[in-house]
Amino acid sequence: MNKKLIGIDLGGTTAKFAILTTDGEIQQRWSIPTNINDQGAHIVPDIINSIRHRLGLYNMTAKEFIGIGMGTPGTVDRDAGTVIGAYNLNWNDLQQIKAPIEDALGIPFTLDNDANVAALGEQWKGAGESSEDVAFMTLGTGVGGGIIASGNLIHGVSGAAGEIGHINVEPTNGFQCTCGRKGCLETVASATGVVRLARTMSEEYAGESELKFMIDDGQEVSSKDVFDLAKANDHFALSVVDKVCYYLGLACGHLGNILNPSSIVIGGGVSAAGDFLLERVDNYFSQFAYPQVAETTGIKLAKLGNEAGVIGAASLALSFNK
Amino acid sequence: MNKKLIGIDLGGTTAKFAILTTDGEIQQRWSIPTNINDQGAHIVPDIINSIRHRLGLYNMTAKEFIGIGMGTPGTVDRDAGTVIGAYNLNWNDLQQIKAPIEDALGIPFTLDNDANVAALGEQWKGAGESSEDVAFMTLGTGVGGGIIASGNLIHGVSGAAGEIGHINVEPTNGFQCTCGRKGCLETVASATGVVRLARTMSEEYAGESELKFMIDDGQEVSSKDVFDLAKANDHFALSVVDKVCYYLGLACGHLGNILNPSSIVIGGGVSAAGDFLLERVDNYFSQFAYPQVAETTGIKLAKLGNEAGVIGAASLALSFNK
Repeated sequence: MNKKLIGIDLGGTTAKFAILTTDGEIQQRWSIPTNINDQGAHIVPDIINSIRHRLGLYNMTAKEFIGIGMGTPGTVDRDAGTVIGAYNLNWNDLQQIKAPIEDALGIPFTLDNDANVAALGEQWKGAGESSEDVAFMTLGTGVGGGIIASGNLIHGVSGAAGEIGHINVEPTNGFQCTCGRKGCLETVASATGVVRLARTMSEEYAGESELKFMIDDGQEVSSKDVFDLAKANDHFALSVVDKVCYYLGLACGHLGNILNPSSIVIGGGVSAAGDFLLERVDNYFSQFAYPQVAETTGIKLAKLGNEAGVIGAASLALSFNK
Repeated sequence: MNKKLIGIDLGGTTAKFAILTTDGEIQQRWSIPTNINDQGAHIVPDIINSIRHRLGLYNMTAKEFIGIGMGTPGTVDRDAGTVIGAYNLNWNDLQQIKAPIEDALGIPFTLDNDANVAALGEQWKGAGESSEDVAFMTLGTGVGGGIIASGNLIHGVSGAAGEIGHINVEPTNGFQCTCGRKGCLETVASATGVVRLARTMSEEYAGESELKFMIDDGQEVSSKDVFDLAKANDHFALSVVDKVCYYLGLACGHLGNILNPSSIVIGGGVSAAGDFLLERVDNYFSQFAYPQVAETTGIKLAKLGNEAGVIGAASLALSFNK
């Protein structure tokens, strides 16, 4: 019998579920809203009930599964199977996750943080093409990341490996970051960071520009606006995009020189700008990467979109298949 | 019977050898001059003869060894057991290493590049304290490095992982590096880089300084002179040391945010400045590392000195013990 995997991608608004083969092929997908009321006390019971309901629907039993993997916000203790500090879930205090789910379902359960799980997804079935060495960054509300090196997800001594959003790219005059430092990549390459950079640069820009007009006019501006106007050849918007891509290329240079991965995969909302972004990042990357690294490490767009989470989460459960 | 390991640290002037226990305790040590004549054709035969001679001397046989590990300059193909481009050995063309040594001695042989092997040595028996996550940089004529993450030496897709000397620390106005890029760490933190930085900064410095006098006077200045004068409170020398430590702290920040190792170990000649260097690097590191990384990743001085190479090389041979 070919046993299956369950992947869960737990987010602040929805929890996504999938049943996959051990080859990473999705066979069933569903999602439920995340109920963050009562300090998030409903989340784990809702997950258990949803899986139970679906297994009944598909006429499947616990024995048909190798395991369940889950990606979650917050700080994960993988050995204990707990999460703390997932504020968008209202999980401020320590939450038991593994124990109640295994007790209720009788299927081995493991978890990791959401950026690591998305990195695993892209490495396994996405742009990483199953390479043993892949770095991943996601440019969304913040900038997250995950590192796979020599085939292992890298956690570091305290689980803070892959904090790519906090690579310093502006050491002397950077924007304040929520983490307490200044000049982190996240302050200039997240969706809000791109807009902050545009607002700051607009103060120095004197020429004609629709983007500058929108900013000066007090209009709501998004990172998508910045990229769309740059694509429409707005010179000021182009200079903002160039600066964002410089910062991304510099951070990719550091990742490349330290890890020499086969690919650095860029995902998240900001990466929707596509090749327009990628070509510019790659150009700066080539300036900052050691020549052998520039030749062998590719900068790539993420391929899996929203599915990276459930696929990567499911891949965690492959560890039970040994 | 407790089998032993042989470690070889092959350099441009000497080849160092050691016989070690599987716990990394050195039992015998010796060295021979490296004969780089005739395109380095004598090097492998000299290694074979030296080991044969010593095994006779110690009344030991091939069966008493798990394997031989070697660190070497140049670009290593670990699977093929070959080296190319080790210019300080005159090994410009592809050299067979593993095959002739195994044929002659009947002991399994493996090799890796010298910086990786030194990293393994410090991780196993030195400042890394056997942690699964250690980054190592050596500040010598150049700046080399090696990364151990999740217990594995990280090579990357083409063996260029750990090129710490080529992390860009001065993206906009950096010195030209031998690698072809500008602003690499090596251009400001190697022994020659420190002096180059001092010479450049001296052009802008107006006050009293023995270091500036020596430079203006055309005297030979070493990186040791720069650190010694800084320790003697020469203000200009202090400003040079501060800049070197800023660059090192920035690079350590990148290593920390990407890998969150338990320690970043700094070795090589420049690190002889000791705590005077370390405290300043650590100070900048704390500015550039994500708070959780700053709390959990330590900046440390290498402990093994010249022995890191043979110890780390021997540890490579532990892979035959499975």
